[in-house]
Amino acid sequence: MATFTVTFQPGGRSVSVPERTSIAEAGGAAGLTLHTPCGRRGRCGKCAVRVISAAAEPSPAERRLFAESELAEGWRLACQGRVTWDLEVHVPASALIVSHRIQVEGTGRDILVEPSVHKTALRLPPPDLTDPRDDLSRVLDALGGGTRAPDSLRSLRELPGLMRSAGYHVTAVVADNMLTAVEPGDTAEAAYGAAVDIGTTTVVVYLCHLPTGNVVGVASELNPQAQYGEDVVSRLQLATSEGDGLWRLNRAIVQAVDGLIGRAAGEAGVSREQVYEIAVVGNTCMGHLFLGLPPVGLVRLPFVSAFRSAQTAKAAELGVRIHPAGRIYMVPNIGGYVGADTVGVILASELDQSRGLRVAVDIGTNGEIVVAQGGELYACSTAAGPAFEGARISRGMRAAAGAIDRVEIDGDVSYHVIGEVAPTGICGSGLVDAIAGLVRVGLVDETGRLRKPEEVGSGPEKVRRRLTENAGGPEFVLASAAESGVGRPVAVTARDIREAQLAKGAIAAGTALVLEMLGRRTDEVEQFLLAGAFGNYIRRESAVAIGLVPALPAERIVSIGNAAGLGARLVLCSVSLRRRGEEIARQVQHVELSEQEGFYDRFTEAMALRPLSGPV
Amino acid sequence: MATFTVTFQPGGRSVSVPERTSIAEAGGAAGLTLHTPCGRRGRCGKCAVRVISAAAEPSPAERRLFAESELAEGWRLACQGRVTWDLEVHVPASALIVSHRIQVEGTGRDILVEPSVHKTALRLPPPDLTDPRDDLSRVLDALGGGTRAPDSLRSLRELPGLMRSAGYHVTAVVADNMLTAVEPGDTAEAAYGAAVDIGTTTVVVYLCHLPTGNVVGVASELNPQAQYGEDVVSRLQLATSEGDGLWRLNRAIVQAVDGLIGRAAGEAGVSREQVYEIAVVGNTCMGHLFLGLPPVGLVRLPFVSAFRSAQTAKAAELGVRIHPAGRIYMVPNIGGYVGADTVGVILASELDQSRGLRVAVDIGTNGEIVVAQGGELYACSTAAGPAFEGARISRGMRAAAGAIDRVEIDGDVSYHVIGEVAPTGICGSGLVDAIAGLVRVGLVDETGRLRKPEEVGSGPEKVRRRLTENAGGPEFVLASAAESGVGRPVAVTARDIREAQLAKGAIAAGTALVLEMLGRRTDEVEQFLLAGAFGNYIRRESAVAIGLVPALPAERIVSIGNAAGLGARLVLCSVSLRRRGEEIARQVQHVELSEQEGFYDRFTEAMALRPLSGPV
Repeated sequence: MATFTVTFQPGGRSVSVPERTSIAEAGGAAGLTLHTPCGRRGRCGKCAVRVISAAAEPSPAERRLFAESELAEGWRLACQGRVTWDLEVHVPASALIVSHRIQVEGTGRDILVEPSVHKTALRLPPPDLTDPRDDLSRVLDALGGGTRAPDSLRSLRELPGLMRSAGYHVTAVVADNMLTAVEPGDTAEAAYGAAVDIGTTTVVVYLCHLPTGNVVGVASELNPQAQYGEDVVSRLQLATSEGDGLWRLNRAIVQAVDGLIGRAAGEAGVSREQVYEIAVVGNTCMGHLFLGLPPVGLVRLPFVSAFRSAQTAKAAELGVRIHPAGRIYMVPNIGGYVGADTVGVILASELDQSRGLRVAVDIGTNGEIVVAQGGELYACSTAAGPAFEGARISRGMRAAAGAIDRVEIDGDVSYHVIGEVAPTGICGSGLVDAIAGLVRVGLVDETGRLRKPEEVGSGPEKVRRRLTENAGGPEFVLASAAESGVGRPVAVTARDIREAQLAKGAIAAGTALVLEMLGRRTDEVEQFLLAGAFGNYIRRESAVAIGLVPALPAERIVSIGNAAGLGARLVLCSVSLRRRGEEIARQVQHVELSEQEGFYDRFTEAMALRPLSGPV
Repeated sequence: MATFTVTFQPGGRSVSVPERTSIAEAGGAAGLTLHTPCGRRGRCGKCAVRVISAAAEPSPAERRLFAESELAEGWRLACQGRVTWDLEVHVPASALIVSHRIQVEGTGRDILVEPSVHKTALRLPPPDLTDPRDDLSRVLDALGGGTRAPDSLRSLRELPGLMRSAGYHVTAVVADNMLTAVEPGDTAEAAYGAAVDIGTTTVVVYLCHLPTGNVVGVASELNPQAQYGEDVVSRLQLATSEGDGLWRLNRAIVQAVDGLIGRAAGEAGVSREQVYEIAVVGNTCMGHLFLGLPPVGLVRLPFVSAFRSAQTAKAAELGVRIHPAGRIYMVPNIGGYVGADTVGVILASELDQSRGLRVAVDIGTNGEIVVAQGGELYACSTAAGPAFEGARISRGMRAAAGAIDRVEIDGDVSYHVIGEVAPTGICGSGLVDAIAGLVRVGLVDETGRLRKPEEVGSGPEKVRRRLTENAGGPEFVLASAAESGVGRPVAVTARDIREAQLAKGAIAAGTALVLEMLGRRTDEVEQFLLAGAFGNYIRRESAVAIGLVPALPAERIVSIGNAAGLGARLVLCSVSLRRRGEEIARQVQHVELSEQEGFYDRFTEAMALRPLSGPV
């Protein structure tokens, strides 16, 4: 039997097949799995491809589904067309099955891209006397079994007019196996979702192109709830007091997320209506405030949340402006204050897949600690405070342009500024560096006390003269008013050092306590992961020096960036990772630190500015 | 072993059981199945009963779930309490499983009452350090597996405050296995649904008590869409024309249904918020207009509806004011104009369960005909027109107080008026009687022509003198202006007879044609069911005389009243009948009469006012 070559574009993959093989089968042989839910009977039109070289005479099914002009352009059904000579075929994305393995940008990981929301372009046969199916069945049948009807009248009301005006060439939007919308023509590529990481201090939105999983836009800003209190506790108080506190906190965060989505979409040239889903991570309290749920159970022991499992809501009900049928997927919580952000960290770091002893610490306003040992996961939350995010620090700021992110204190003081501009403030990593340096040169002692200028008689002059004192107490000037970009010095105050001590003490004590519960020593930790924007900038030696991180060999300490946000991206782009996240939330054992004997003693001890070592 | 007697109230069923049998097991032996989803572990509190005689010491589980005062009143858990002496136990409805077989009011049928919406009173254990489950899980766990979280933030937002203020004694509202609301205290008995029958001419609402299936209120009125056109075709034209025609038609019917629910609820002393679901039947067009779906596919062959399968929508989205989380269940359509009302007729008449040849005709503005033969079902719709509902008839009215519903024309004319008041008009059954009588005494010939007074020379004087003529043509006076309650005569006009002929011709021709398709003769029909309000009043001999109904022995012709409405009640109260209705809609073979060869000839023939007989 004769064989012919079929070349598929874009990509140019070629395959040699026997005569009369269907184009769909040839595609399969070339590694391209084409959509054929009607069982290759030429009924659904989903495998429409364009034959670039000479195309065969159209079949009756093809005549039914394509306009004369489309046939002339070479449009055929891959399931119908037979290979009878060499062919070159263009395969639109809409004809390929939606799940395929890709490497997720910014990670070293391949994931199976299979978003909960996917769009499928359909060329439907118009109704006639032999096929008077109703409009909805015509769409659902073409999508193959198991797709449910829309749960909103809005979508159903658009269907009849839209199908007719589009000549039965439409794109179905399916979310979680439910048809949620139909759009005219082929819009399968225009499918976006937003991964949202709601931190107590910072909110980040990643706009993702769902068919590829790529991030096409990022936007972030400070959580505007901070105007009502910098930490979780003060917001909980407001949310559970009489009056409209909960409503104000809810509106503030919803509007922030809505605005960030608009910004990220605008920069990527995407319209809000092309965003179909939002996947959200955040700590338990942020999750409640975003959904507008009263956190009455979170204000006292036993910390009881309103929900723990994953929740789905309509974006319109919450007031986030995406596609009118768009949905919100809330990643599940673990327990107490250990929320969906920690599920995100575990998913991103694959802690659940490791056998050895690994620790991940997500440093934000709350510090979450996860310890993985032999497939078991333990997690706790500490009220670290926002010091490492630059909040409550006199010249603190986020790790953005103008922030001093690195400091060296030796015979002199040198620093690095993000964006290579004049410094305007200091971010968490710069603060840790500065404190480690000040301890090293003896200007700060182990208890965290910053010496007064008159107490310091020796040491390098270039360093000593930076120590000043004003009404608020002593401070150490990194950049003078003249050097800085804001007309006043950028300095570290005695108070700033206390804030950093509280944060690092809480994290170090929590880590030590969970390891102790498991009968393990800190030096046994095989990998110590630092999550959070902070973790991207921090210098390991400084973090080790002040005892924020155990004294482990440098290669065991790994910064993984905004792992919670990456977790949100993963669940947005993969239903199997979504299911795994739900499994993780059920499986993690939640440790309530405040109930552990000796936690407060250990906390006090861990505030000392010295390396962590020894048995724990 | 000693045995003791346990008597259950209300009802007084007694059972003798061995010592230490649990009350729950004793209940089972007495035929009362108690709710024990927690596996009789004393955790969910659903089997709470009150021991009227001396109760045993409470168990720890009982101490946890009941207040001291409740324990003193004898409240115990049936799964925990052991029989150690003779007991008398009061079992509240909330402790019984929701499905039980009852006879549905107004029918001869027993059905398993298992509504899609049911309420369960729960006594939940409050959270403590050993049980810090989240609020939602606490409710869902108590409901047993398989209950889904609410899909609206509204319900979730109420949960935390409500559970605490109600002391964890709440009632869960579950619809279609989804938790839709939680209410404080035990409100399990206050559960209502509305069965809605939207006819082209008349709208009826039956308010049903869901736990028993009983009808507690009925309200009906003319379909206000009639102001835009009496028949389906003129409303379709308006709905598919430019402008807001669809919106106006939709608002008219939604407001009518909303008003009728309010009226039925008000009369029954039920609040709108206690109505959790609406089950709706109607022809295909009425279904579209009620949901606000553009009926663009229904205006020409092949008649294509927007949806065919059952649909669920939120009542709030449509604007029907019931419980805020209330839902609308649209019974599926069969095809073309054969809608959900016909599914209702089949369910109510159990046509799908019969082996022999049976016919059901639902006489409304459209006449739907169903033929059942050997388990197969065939259905068609005819544009009968609203004559038998009293519309387009000069003195026509619905079968309500003041309507002449029976007429005898012999040597004299006598009639019966509904409500025993002065007549104000004539309803469908009176019209059929009058026409049959006029044919019998020779004032109307077989072609339907009403003679003019001057053409009638012989016959009884008392009858002859009622024949008059005015500008509109000849008419036959049943009640003079003096006798009537409206100051003008109640008469049958020549035009009225033509309207009735069109209606009966369409129905008779449709019935004949479907039987012919199946190779069956009319005299083989084992049962001929007349559905619709009209069918309740019609005299069989008159219907046979004019050929509306085949000339069958009287016992084979059975009136079944508003079977479509009964069908809506059945799907409201029983999920298995709901599933059966969905199966019926898929299974029925739809016959498009206008496509059948010879339909119009047969229609013309069937307009003759004579009995149907012979081979077809």
